[in-house]
Amino acid sequence: MRRVHVVGAGMHRFGKFPPQVTLEVLGAHAATAAMADAGVAPADIDAVYVGHVFGGPVAGQRIAMRVGLSGKPISNHENYCSSGATALREAWIAVGAGICDVALVVGVEKMTDRIKGGVRPDPGDLDAAMGFIFAAGHALSARRYMRDHGASREEIAMVAVKNHAHSVHNPYAQYQKPISLEQVVNARPIADPLGLYDCSPISDGAAAVVIASAEGMRRLSLTGPAPAVAACGLVSGTVLRGLGDINEEDVSARAGQAAYTFAGIGPEDIDVVEMHDCFTIAEIVRLEGLGLLPRGEGARLTMAGHTSLGGPLPVNPSGGLLSRGHPVGATGTAQICELYWQLTGRAGGRQVENARAGLAYCKGGSVSGTDGASVTTVIMTA
Amino acid sequence: MRRVHVVGAGMHRFGKFPPQVTLEVLGAHAATAAMADAGVAPADIDAVYVGHVFGGPVAGQRIAMRVGLSGKPISNHENYCSSGATALREAWIAVGAGICDVALVVGVEKMTDRIKGGVRPDPGDLDAAMGFIFAAGHALSARRYMRDHGASREEIAMVAVKNHAHSVHNPYAQYQKPISLEQVVNARPIADPLGLYDCSPISDGAAAVVIASAEGMRRLSLTGPAPAVAACGLVSGTVLRGLGDINEEDVSARAGQAAYTFAGIGPEDIDVVEMHDCFTIAEIVRLEGLGLLPRGEGARLTMAGHTSLGGPLPVNPSGGLLSRGHPVGATGTAQICELYWQLTGRAGGRQVENARAGLAYCKGGSVSGTDGASVTTVIMTA
Repeated sequence: MRRVHVVGAGMHRFGKFPPQVTLEVLGAHAATAAMADAGVAPADIDAVYVGHVFGGPVAGQRIAMRVGLSGKPISNHENYCSSGATALREAWIAVGAGICDVALVVGVEKMTDRIKGGVRPDPGDLDAAMGFIFAAGHALSARRYMRDHGASREEIAMVAVKNHAHSVHNPYAQYQKPISLEQVVNARPIADPLGLYDCSPISDGAAAVVIASAEGMRRLSLTGPAPAVAACGLVSGTVLRGLGDINEEDVSARAGQAAYTFAGIGPEDIDVVEMHDCFTIAEIVRLEGLGLLPRGEGARLTMAGHTSLGGPLPVNPSGGLLSRGHPVGATGTAQICELYWQLTGRAGGRQVENARAGLAYCKGGSVSGTDGASVTTVIMTA
Repeated sequence: MRRVHVVGAGMHRFGKFPPQVTLEVLGAHAATAAMADAGVAPADIDAVYVGHVFGGPVAGQRIAMRVGLSGKPISNHENYCSSGATALREAWIAVGAGICDVALVVGVEKMTDRIKGGVRPDPGDLDAAMGFIFAAGHALSARRYMRDHGASREEIAMVAVKNHAHSVHNPYAQYQKPISLEQVVNARPIADPLGLYDCSPISDGAAAVVIASAEGMRRLSLTGPAPAVAACGLVSGTVLRGLGDINEEDVSARAGQAAYTFAGIGPEDIDVVEMHDCFTIAEIVRLEGLGLLPRGEGARLTMAGHTSLGGPLPVNPSGGLLSRGHPVGATGTAQICELYWQLTGRAGGRQVENARAGLAYCKGGSVSGTDGASVTTVIMTA
């Protein structure tokens, strides 16, 4: 497979927007911004890959029409919260295979029009029907983690404090002001021990990147900097057997291993991480599952500043899902935007110094009886 | 890109089924049948690609769980009526690129649970809001064709007669008995001049194929016959400008050209066609757009038996969308099943003699102001 590079990125700010800010408006804004950032015109784009969950049939074509991309090969990709990353993966494979040289990847979601309260699991999900919804599952994870590793409520809450502090510097984030540990711990309870700030919000937004082969970059006279997509692993969760450890994170370990092997680097080489922190505790157990932090030490290390900007392994400089926001189909692509900006030294006040390798991780959806539905791990190198 | 082969196919019969025959039941049935036909076990499958429109988030993962495929890389692909073919295309690229060696592709749809009457266009489709729904568009196409080329109502109706006659021999078809020209012409009007039998039905169903690289075939000791996927082109419709000819079919011409060029063969080399006959007239104008029949002669040639089994270019030996049925996400994959059976001499009473090269075409969805949303052209060679 040929090497594939990210040559431009663009976003529409995440947030809650009125109905006239449609999915198409959001997607078109991000697509235009990414093409402008790359310095390419619609005519230069060979193919369009769009990730979304709730956009309805041929949403990608509706977006493409608004930015002069009608006529191109366009495809829509759904893998719940990994949808944007799955679209990137298919585009990465197509460019790598030589099917096309320059592809636009768009992740987009307009949630506020259709999601009231939280995202509801599939009606056929028997666990969820019994009350085991997303928040409940992560609450069990937190309780188990606290018991097994002697972690405190405050250490887990610190993930939210850290990620909100980071996104003060991110103009695309839904929330751009700091919150205190007291605010997180004393917030309205959602599923004990987790409160409101332990949960990622309902969001609208879009993120897009332009990727290209070396041939594509030559054709368009692009000189970079253009970090490489060194790997993009995808796995799904296996069927749970009996009373296992909810924090085993076998699915993260497998996803990470697939990506590390393909990229030829290990967790010790990663300088910056964009992590799927749909809940505070999720950031901790997934970092451990990926081998980025030692088992059982994630909570303590978070409190110690290990994963803060300025620490040894900054995690979610963008603010993550908790504070940048979580328009589900856009999240995976927004992570790639952030890594692109970090690896090219354009991340402003949230810049990770000397970032040479970044990892982005998404975990999407549930299927009753399995440990997740779709997990992606992208590794990018400067 | 490496050469990719179809090594097995399986379907669930198309039809209208009660609620307990769920999307998951249909998809799992087809997946199991395809793996059994290929002689492979779930452990042999490297990745799963699923096409559907209305199945909801991570439908592919729900199907995979039922057939022992949890844990694999699984992705869901939507491109309206081209969804099954788009899933095939992404799998074909991934196997071609060397990302995996053996992939399962599933197209599936459970329509009867959620579609009452016809498929409704997107609420944002302004043409549709003014009455220009799918049936109305194809009625205009038929009227224009009759005026421009002196075609008769009977010649257009003959497409339905032919395709119903073909599917008498297809055990997977929704309809398996012949209908007469009088029945088609005198049926309940839908959009003048088109009547009920000029329109494809609402259907439930699933179709699956296993594809593999030569390395994958060696690993699994598969000796074939294994027709090659010689090309899989994808384009979208361009923005209509002014009062053009509704039957120009520029989008089909572009889709066909992309596939012919990649495969290195031309329309004159095609022995059998699976055509997206969502309406009778659509089969005619699309065959002409693809260069498979001369412009303006499709209706006359259909009446003359040119596209019937036993004629020079049999079209829709399976019965096509009109008679095999049209569970939208499954249609593109069902076409691949049919070409696989035709090219391996296993099509029974509907076998096209000496079929060496086949073409499958899908046209999916509408985006207001464009000539279609997603068009795929697959070329397979024995």
